[in-house]
Amino acid sequence: MKNPWAALFIALITLAGAAAAPERTIPARTLPTPSTVSPALQEVIAPAWPGAPDPSHYSTAQWKDYIRGRNAAREPFLRSLKQKFNVTVRAGMLAGVRVYRVIPDVIAEENRRRLLVHVHGGAYILYGGEIATTEAILMAHYGQIEVVSVDYRMPPDFPFPAALDDTVAVWREVIKGHTPLNVGLFGTSAGGGLTLATVIKLKELGLPLPGALMAGTPWSDLTKTGDTYYTHEYVDNVLGTNDGRLEAAAKLYAGTHDLKEPLLSPVYGDFSGFPPTILLSGTRDLFLSNTVRVQQKLLQAGVPADLLVFEGESHAQYASAIEAPESAAAFREVAHFFNAHLDK
Amino acid sequence: MKNPWAALFIALITLAGAAAAPERTIPARTLPTPSTVSPALQEVIAPAWPGAPDPSHYSTAQWKDYIRGRNAAREPFLRSLKQKFNVTVRAGMLAGVRVYRVIPDVIAEENRRRLLVHVHGGAYILYGGEIATTEAILMAHYGQIEVVSVDYRMPPDFPFPAALDDTVAVWREVIKGHTPLNVGLFGTSAGGGLTLATVIKLKELGLPLPGALMAGTPWSDLTKTGDTYYTHEYVDNVLGTNDGRLEAAAKLYAGTHDLKEPLLSPVYGDFSGFPPTILLSGTRDLFLSNTVRVQQKLLQAGVPADLLVFEGESHAQYASAIEAPESAAAFREVAHFFNAHLDK
Repeated sequence: MKNPWAALFIALITLAGAAAAPERTIPARTLPTPSTVSPALQEVIAPAWPGAPDPSHYSTAQWKDYIRGRNAAREPFLRSLKQKFNVTVRAGMLAGVRVYRVIPDVIAEENRRRLLVHVHGGAYILYGGEIATTEAILMAHYGQIEVVSVDYRMPPDFPFPAALDDTVAVWREVIKGHTPLNVGLFGTSAGGGLTLATVIKLKELGLPLPGALMAGTPWSDLTKTGDTYYTHEYVDNVLGTNDGRLEAAAKLYAGTHDLKEPLLSPVYGDFSGFPPTILLSGTRDLFLSNTVRVQQKLLQAGVPADLLVFEGESHAQYASAIEAPESAAAFREVAHFFNAHLDK
Repeated sequence: MKNPWAALFIALITLAGAAAAPERTIPARTLPTPSTVSPALQEVIAPAWPGAPDPSHYSTAQWKDYIRGRNAAREPFLRSLKQKFNVTVRAGMLAGVRVYRVIPDVIAEENRRRLLVHVHGGAYILYGGEIATTEAILMAHYGQIEVVSVDYRMPPDFPFPAALDDTVAVWREVIKGHTPLNVGLFGTSAGGGLTLATVIKLKELGLPLPGALMAGTPWSDLTKTGDTYYTHEYVDNVLGTNDGRLEAAAKLYAGTHDLKEPLLSPVYGDFSGFPPTILLSGTRDLFLSNTVRVQQKLLQAGVPADLLVFEGESHAQYASAIEAPESAAAFREVAHFFNAHLDK
């Protein structure tokens, strides 16, 4: 333990005595940047969590200001993606919902009749508009497949179930032109949760299901329930902690609904009959438990459920550290999964 | 942050300024026992790491005393397994190596011509003799398949490569009576590392490979290299830390060899042509990075590599918390994997 403050702290803890079971106190620690990842990924892993405002008492106007600011800060990332990858992004409407069609320069022969439907992340509040498409661009490029990204409605104006209504409406429209088993559904973080919630809803409605899913580090439990909400608190330099920002976003999205309703926290839903699913997370991800709990529930429902966990990565860094070879590897592995499981 | 000491600590850190990059300081935290696992597993997760002696300066006699004591403490676990599961365990020799044949009361029809070869864990120093078979018993029972467990030679009398020589010798003998693709190879911890090292060695020797592998939380890197050696230090209540005991065991096993030789730290080996492999770990596992680094290397070599990560589990608790339904689920999922990948 190199940090003298940490040594001091351990001494204090020892003097204070152990915490009452079943809680366990873990001393402070100094985390080196792992040597086991690429230099580009090391740059993303090294910084501490920058902190976040606590918007729990924001007015609607303050929420909108916060969301506008965060979305504006995302624009350069979208521009860099559009420069780096040769994709075409076209705004449009499907079933009254704003969508973006993302078309890569090369579509693989086996993907000519396939489509991926994308639901973006952003804690159900952020990344509306064209910045919804960042992950869709990565997937379209590395997967050589067309993607439709759903710019679903969000709070504060449109709380749950508006987002879900939009993904279901888009799905109904998509399957008018595509064989459902030729179509995959995917998303990360809130988009991973919404992917799972959408399939639960499609089951309830008796609609055909997609051929395969990717749920990247899904926000499968909107309450602070699950091991890594605690073990990876402050270790994850993207989300930091559930307290404050995430908790407030969950409540804003849920409105009057219970956070544990399966359409909000899909880990509490019934996964029987789900399509084959691939899940992604990282060794520092606050949502690693949100991810692995879903994997076990899927497997126990008899659903093939692949899992990729990326060394050193905090929440969803496979989709943000786009200069890292680990990011390319992640999307190629997801593409391989869709190719293995979607009909042609 | 409920812990007032942690709040104090954060205040001190803030006053002291951020740690120099690229190290990051993470405050102490209080870990609740997760509500998201079975009561039986909660009992295993709740206790703090009990600590371990630092045997780095042990004499050979002191090592033998330590090993004898730890092995004796393992006997009741073996007895409870033999009571709980209706398996027959028979000592024997194969190619001059002590082995145990583990035969379940029911062998599934599809497994009549299949066999699993097991290499036990224990940091390459512990669990010689019949206690080698604990994981083999679980696998034989839940998989309804015969298992041969290799009681390979270990330090201090027999350092590397004695263990590897023994697994290779047993393999040569096994494939005289079995089609190699009908046979799986598996193990946990040191046994996971030895599983991978054995296959690297079989490739070097030009011998036929097994049909499928399970490498449970493999000790794939004998040096303290990898993210969760740091992030999960003291969070893992089985291994605690690499410092001291694990480090000393690695050096005792390696003898005069470099710890990063691929036959000692197989994550540095060439995985091309490997059989399909399933990997297991837990959200608190010190070896989560040892596990996921292997998964990515396998996938990038074009090898199917499944991963299961168990909520809340520290190192290898799927194989020790045998009263937990999560343990049964783990072995059933591994059995399902072998059934899907082994020839009949």
